[in-house]
Amino acid sequence: MRFDEAYSGNVFIGSSHDFTTSRVVLYGMPMDWTASFRPGSRLGPARIREASLVHEEYSHYLRRDLSEIQYFDAGDIPLAFGNPQRSLEQISVFVQQLLSYEKIPFGIGGEHLVTWPIVKEIYTKYPDLVVLHFDAHADLREDYEGEVYSHATPMRKIAERIGGENLYQFGIRSMTREEATYAEEAGIHFYPFAVIEPLKQIIPTIKDRPVYVSIDIDVLDPAFAPGTGTPDSGGITSQEMFTVIHTLAAAELQIVGADLVEVAPAYDPTEQTVVLAGKMIREMLLGLFV
Amino acid sequence: MRFDEAYSGNVFIGSSHDFTTSRVVLYGMPMDWTASFRPGSRLGPARIREASLVHEEYSHYLRRDLSEIQYFDAGDIPLAFGNPQRSLEQISVFVQQLLSYEKIPFGIGGEHLVTWPIVKEIYTKYPDLVVLHFDAHADLREDYEGEVYSHATPMRKIAERIGGENLYQFGIRSMTREEATYAEEAGIHFYPFAVIEPLKQIIPTIKDRPVYVSIDIDVLDPAFAPGTGTPDSGGITSQEMFTVIHTLAAAELQIVGADLVEVAPAYDPTEQTVVLAGKMIREMLLGLFV
Amino acid sequence: MRFDEAYSGNVFIGSSHDFTTSRVVLYGMPMDWTASFRPGSRLGPARIREASLVHEEYSHYLRRDLSEIQYFDAGDIPLAFGNPQRSLEQISVFVQQLLSYEKIPFGIGGEHLVTWPIVKEIYTKYPDLVVLHFDAHADLREDYEGEVYSHATPMRKIAERIGGENLYQFGIRSMTREEATYAEEAGIHFYPFAVIEPLKQIIPTIKDRPVYVSIDIDVLDPAFAPGTGTPDSGGITSQEMFTVIHTLAAAELQIVGADLVEVAPAYDPTEQTVVLAGKMIREMLLGLFV
Amino acid sequence: MRFDEAYSGNVFIGSSHDFTTSRVVLYGMPMDWTASFRPGSRLGPARIREASLVHEEYSHYLRRDLSEIQYFDAGDIPLAFGNPQRSLEQISVFVQQLLSYEKIPFGIGGEHLVTWPIVKEIYTKYPDLVVLHFDAHADLREDYEGEVYSHATPMRKIAERIGGENLYQFGIRSMTREEATYAEEAGIHFYPFAVIEPLKQIIPTIKDRPVYVSIDIDVLDPAFAPGTGTPDSGGITSQEMFTVIHTLAAAELQIVGADLVEVAPAYDPTEQTVVLAGKMIREMLLGLFV
Amino acid sequence: MRFDEAYSGNVFIGSSHDFTTSRVVLYGMPMDWTASFRPGSRLGPARIREASLVHEEYSHYLRRDLSEIQYFDAGDIPLAFGNPQRSLEQISVFVQQLLSYEKIPFGIGGEHLVTWPIVKEIYTKYPDLVVLHFDAHADLREDYEGEVYSHATPMRKIAERIGGENLYQFGIRSMTREEATYAEEAGIHFYPFAVIEPLKQIIPTIKDRPVYVSIDIDVLDPAFAPGTGTPDSGGITSQEMFTVIHTLAAAELQIVGADLVEVAPAYDPTEQTVVLAGKMIREMLLGLFV
Amino acid sequence: MRFDEAYSGNVFIGSSHDFTTSRVVLYGMPMDWTASFRPGSRLGPARIREASLVHEEYSHYLRRDLSEIQYFDAGDIPLAFGNPQRSLEQISVFVQQLLSYEKIPFGIGGEHLVTWPIVKEIYTKYPDLVVLHFDAHADLREDYEGEVYSHATPMRKIAERIGGENLYQFGIRSMTREEATYAEEAGIHFYPFAVIEPLKQIIPTIKDRPVYVSIDIDVLDPAFAPGTGTPDSGGITSQEMFTVIHTLAAAELQIVGADLVEVAPAYDPTEQTVVLAGKMIREMLLGLFV
Repeated sequence: MRFDEAYSGNVFIGSSHDFTTSRVVLYGMPMDWTASFRPGSRLGPARIREASLVHEEYSHYLRRDLSEIQYFDAGDIPLAFGNPQRSLEQISVFVQQLLSYEKIPFGIGGEHLVTWPIVKEIYTKYPDLVVLHFDAHADLREDYEGEVYSHATPMRKIAERIGGENLYQFGIRSMTREEATYAEEAGIHFYPFAVIEPLKQIIPTIKDRPVYVSIDIDVLDPAFAPGTGTPDSGGITSQEMFTVIHTLAAAELQIVGADLVEVAPAYDPTEQTVVLAGKMIREMLLGLFV
Repeated sequence: MRFDEAYSGNVFIGSSHDFTTSRVVLYGMPMDWTASFRPGSRLGPARIREASLVHEEYSHYLRRDLSEIQYFDAGDIPLAFGNPQRSLEQISVFVQQLLSYEKIPFGIGGEHLVTWPIVKEIYTKYPDLVVLHFDAHADLREDYEGEVYSHATPMRKIAERIGGENLYQFGIRSMTREEATYAEEAGIHFYPFAVIEPLKQIIPTIKDRPVYVSIDIDVLDPAFAPGTGTPDSGGITSQEMFTVIHTLAAAELQIVGADLVEVAPAYDPTEQTVVLAGKMIREMLLGLFV
Repeated sequence: MRFDEAYSGNVFIGSSHDFTTSRVVLYGMPMDWTASFRPGSRLGPARIREASLVHEEYSHYLRRDLSEIQYFDAGDIPLAFGNPQRSLEQISVFVQQLLSYEKIPFGIGGEHLVTWPIVKEIYTKYPDLVVLHFDAHADLREDYEGEVYSHATPMRKIAERIGGENLYQFGIRSMTREEATYAEEAGIHFYPFAVIEPLKQIIPTIKDRPVYVSIDIDVLDPAFAPGTGTPDSGGITSQEMFTVIHTLAAAELQIVGADLVEVAPAYDPTEQTVVLAGKMIREMLLGLFV
Repeated sequence: MRFDEAYSGNVFIGSSHDFTTSRVVLYGMPMDWTASFRPGSRLGPARIREASLVHEEYSHYLRRDLSEIQYFDAGDIPLAFGNPQRSLEQISVFVQQLLSYEKIPFGIGGEHLVTWPIVKEIYTKYPDLVVLHFDAHADLREDYEGEVYSHATPMRKIAERIGGENLYQFGIRSMTREEATYAEEAGIHFYPFAVIEPLKQIIPTIKDRPVYVSIDIDVLDPAFAPGTGTPDSGGITSQEMFTVIHTLAAAELQIVGADLVEVAPAYDPTEQTVVLAGKMIREMLLGLFV
Repeated sequence: MRFDEAYSGNVFIGSSHDFTTSRVVLYGMPMDWTASFRPGSRLGPARIREASLVHEEYSHYLRRDLSEIQYFDAGDIPLAFGNPQRSLEQISVFVQQLLSYEKIPFGIGGEHLVTWPIVKEIYTKYPDLVVLHFDAHADLREDYEGEVYSHATPMRKIAERIGGENLYQFGIRSMTREEATYAEEAGIHFYPFAVIEPLKQIIPTIKDRPVYVSIDIDVLDPAFAPGTGTPDSGGITSQEMFTVIHTLAAAELQIVGADLVEVAPAYDPTEQTVVLAGKMIREMLLGLFV
Repeated sequence: MRFDEAYSGNVFIGSSHDFTTSRVVLYGMPMDWTASFRPGSRLGPARIREASLVHEEYSHYLRRDLSEIQYFDAGDIPLAFGNPQRSLEQISVFVQQLLSYEKIPFGIGGEHLVTWPIVKEIYTKYPDLVVLHFDAHADLREDYEGEVYSHATPMRKIAERIGGENLYQFGIRSMTREEATYAEEAGIHFYPFAVIEPLKQIIPTIKDRPVYVSIDIDVLDPAFAPGTGTPDSGGITSQEMFTVIHTLAAAELQIVGADLVEVAPAYDPTEQTVVLAGKMIREMLLGLFV
């Protein structure tokens, strides 16, 4: 035993111990520095891992077991407490390295702003990238209270970088009029309220392209996922969320990265949100990257 | 700055500062004196206002923004702590004055008994009044433990005043046999369990009449609205509730008053109920009174 | 007043005071000794009774009132704290006696392992027994961490005793691959994910046989029933659960026993789970045994 | 086994099964109907019993074990929900019967108003009665919002019945000026803020008289007993409370009755208040009545 | 009734309705924008007012009643959400106006940074100002993560402005070595850990000078005041806090302003912190400004 | 960056990155398998680390900073979920290795049973070992419900191994009569209730011997440390606990190991227990091993 390697720590169920042979790398981004209403998503990754113990490693939906795939839980990226700018750079560096090892990054937030550096790096590798975004909020603001790097702006940054026509937004039910206008002008594939139907329709059109999947837990109704920073009523159910994942799985897309963000355990006294998030991650690990 | 006017306090998002030019007046009725099982709805109005910050002022459902309408949040009516009789009179006086200014009253409870003095006053102005009531409970008892003014009796008082045939009850799933019998005998339009279908059917029949809308948050399932005094499982979803509001909006009825009652923050640790209530109020402000 | 009988205690609404004339006997099994993830179901029966006060004794679904039937709430069986083996024997003895008095046992858990001694006793009386099992988990493990008597094994014990072909499992969405294989090999009627459709289909085939109904509250989604030990997202709604009960009621089966298990109040800060469980028990009392 | 006696229920640790041979009878009064600020003490007795499991039956303070004394936990008196007047009568009847059996009543509240009927009955038997009252509040109001029977009035009723000079109040730190004036005029032995010193001083003066002890849990600081209806900061510590009990024990007074009231579990998320109350009851059982 | 004045809102008990004749003005500063560990103090003022209902207006400690003094609760200052710089300016303007009306400002936080603009304004009026600071933290950092305006810096700003020798710090138990060094070098009267003894000693030396009192609720131990953003164990008790206030009251100092800050209701599930804060405010109102 | 070393994870503040040069090694033992009343201490180590962020690395009590010492946080030992026997062996192996590297083990529980394998290993190295035990409970049972390895037995095992005369127990206030008798017969230095005075008295007698310090968080009153499995009222304050640590620090004993156990975050909604535990660990790191 080497003590500097002794830390088994808190890993997601079924994680391999071998980074080298793993294709997908799971990692946490414990950052909530720009949250305005209810911070706390920085503890999301840790709590989701702890609660993952409640799940079996086998999914009867997909008839597959985590022991059959190889994925590595790298733990949380150490981020500069309270400093968004530096944290984003740290995420960039981390993802660059993952990509240089030919790994598929699967990130757990943390606030949604973390998606920006990830997509930026992946886009460099895959200029033909498509981003599928599931969320209650459009996240298309130019700035929030004067701040360009905010939990309210990542999809704007992404749309500007990869082109609005390569961004697909599902389930959006909260936005300003300016964001709605921008979505239209930028040519974003914008599907307010609905999720499953538009997803099924657009899948054939992205079949041959690299795809990044970003899920904000608040696309679900607060009844199913209360533990989040900016809850918005009127969302989808957990069964619908699993239908989304299984639809993506059945489509056999080329998924080159994914994230699940905005789980805030402080507002999750029953642990139902972290339990749900853990099951989503298991289904994504088993379904999206095979 | 005049200090006796300094209190900006805790107002619902998008409230105008001008009472005179506002058509709709939002006000709280912080009263839970007759609650038997779980009191606490007296804090509903304050908490809904606080949490309204999580919402945008723009609704993409209705493609309208609170800045486009004029409504005034008058705060909470000061009510006599622990004294139902006097509190009801204070509500009566308040609503009378609103009506004398030609304002549309939009009240936030507090317990459901508050609806009785409001409807009584509005009925004086609009003798042709129709009341649409959305609730898990019939609230048709003659008395509760000998008390005529109780959270279990307001709809009985209203039916007796305006005539049972002018009362429409939707989603009711908890009642005594006596209440069910009374509903039938009094000619109430009584729709147990169902909400949206019967609502769509009756709308054409009330098109030309003044309408009052009273929503008890417990018409929703406790999964969506746990923060309430007498939860009853088996209710509607938040999406169905928005369909109700948008159905009313699309019908362009002459709505002369509304309320949302029975939000009890003490049983809402995730804040999902006050978040939902805030969004319902935004949609009602934007949809019902235009 | 005899003081050794003075304890009215905490009884479910509408309980008769007369054991002799009651057909159904409700009883609690305050046991959670083998729970691994989140214990606490030992307090389920007490909290469900306390919260039953929120419900009317009348059901408009079934148009029947608890005053019209005769059932007796016998309170909680005194179980040996921390000792599974002895607790199971105590349940066995209790159920034997109930059966000797020709009573129908209706048990409230406690963890799911309590179902094993109940079914064992009932099977002795009704060798043609059919068991209907509603749950998120298959509970078909041979052992759990080497322990044969565990919350993860009761349905395996039951299948081995009554024959897999007499066991029907609905709504199962969490299991190991071994359990899935066993279900198939043992000839269990195994309906993963779905509940209502398969139930309707199999009802005609069990019409003339004695039926035991075992419901694990976690067959519902955690949105509706967060207060449970091993929550699993993706379950049914409360309306679907009432449809299950009312479907059973309408089928007029010969139901010889029932249980509702795994309500864990510690994870139920809003009380929505105990409120739901109380309503389920009322509907079952009014619907299943008439 | 007789099923109408089957209910072992939820009893305080170490309770005898034999009413006849028990000298002290413990009983709950689940009533909080007149609480204004934070109701919930009706669940105090049940929760204190449940949590009593955490304690040993042996006290090293007193070097005595509950197995050495005979006391009987009679459970909760069934009280008329929401009806103070009838509930008080039910308590009166219960206590009368206890006294007719020569038992010492030891009651658990519930709100403090329950002390009134108990003392009234005991005073009939012991006209020389002394009442020791430990509380943050004087409870000496003539009425509360016009109501004579309120949680704010029991000590006024008692002072008027037994004579102010037979009432000793310790630790009082919240009162109106009117109550302070009344305490003085009525000749009450009134010790604001202080507890242990005045108690030690007055003990010799009551040595030969029958004594009733009434403890409101809020005499402790909310740091030690947050779970109560009207918390008031600045109270005594748990160690000081045990010194009070052990001082009474050492004095070998003739204690003819006692109560512990106002434990409200809804405000006790850590269970520290019910744990403390349970230990106080054990120490009182072992120390006061020997 | 004028509706733009209708808002009685949520005021602290015993507030006068007349700004003009009031000497002391109570006001909230709902700001927590720079909190790093646990935000939420922006809701402190509102929750303290709501819970003030639990207290009598009479204090037996001081034998004085709020009806005997004149103070005015001006509600919360409307502050720019998420913008520290502008919020501080808004507080400055508000306090300037209060001072121009010859009112004594008594502020409720909000985070401790709010003390900076208040003291800055008061110092302009009273150049001989003494500041008494009660806190677990020194708040003497030059900056926090590069930010000069932070909850960790206000006392540094104040020391630099009014001179370290005019600042008295009591109860400090958390600081960096740099802060300890600065306290010494700047000539601050620095009393780590201890509170009452040093306070008594220095009072004679400040008798003839204008005094500002700033209390951070975390000077109390988390046992007494858990609801705060950066709790630190080892603090004083509630009785000691009242001794502080009553010592100040007995000294009859010329107190020209005061604040109570850092109450964060989200970490106060039992409400003991807001209850304590309310009682502190009552005692301060009754004792400090007479 | 090597990804198999990327996990910075969740470490206690001020941890060195260098195992080799560190003298003290901090490690968690996430085990609560034998808890009977309220499990959950398995999450203690993780939550204490997370909350350690609230503390400065500098202690003004000791005028020392964590940057001045070298200690290494090795994370949690991976233990066999639900299996006490194997977990104890895993702890033994871990501690053996630490000792072979000449490190001082500083463990965080987890339940108190973890102390048994640690002391067993240290005793092998230091046969002259003295154990100082601070706890509310004697933990001297021979077995608990027939189980020799239980949270109620570790000090019995230790007394039998190292000799009762080498065991010092402070603050004990909960035990059976059998445990009290055993303590006496075994020659244990047994100090019920009191802590600081007896500690000061015995220190000179153990000056030249190797000392192990085991602190159960429940030696503190639940007011200060509610988050624990078997709370017992009447304990010491946080200031007294720091006095204990600083008394040990001043004595300059040869401390060869230490632990802090039984922190159960599920009963710590305000986080005051994990905050306290973190400060205790900082003071112990800075004070005990220098």
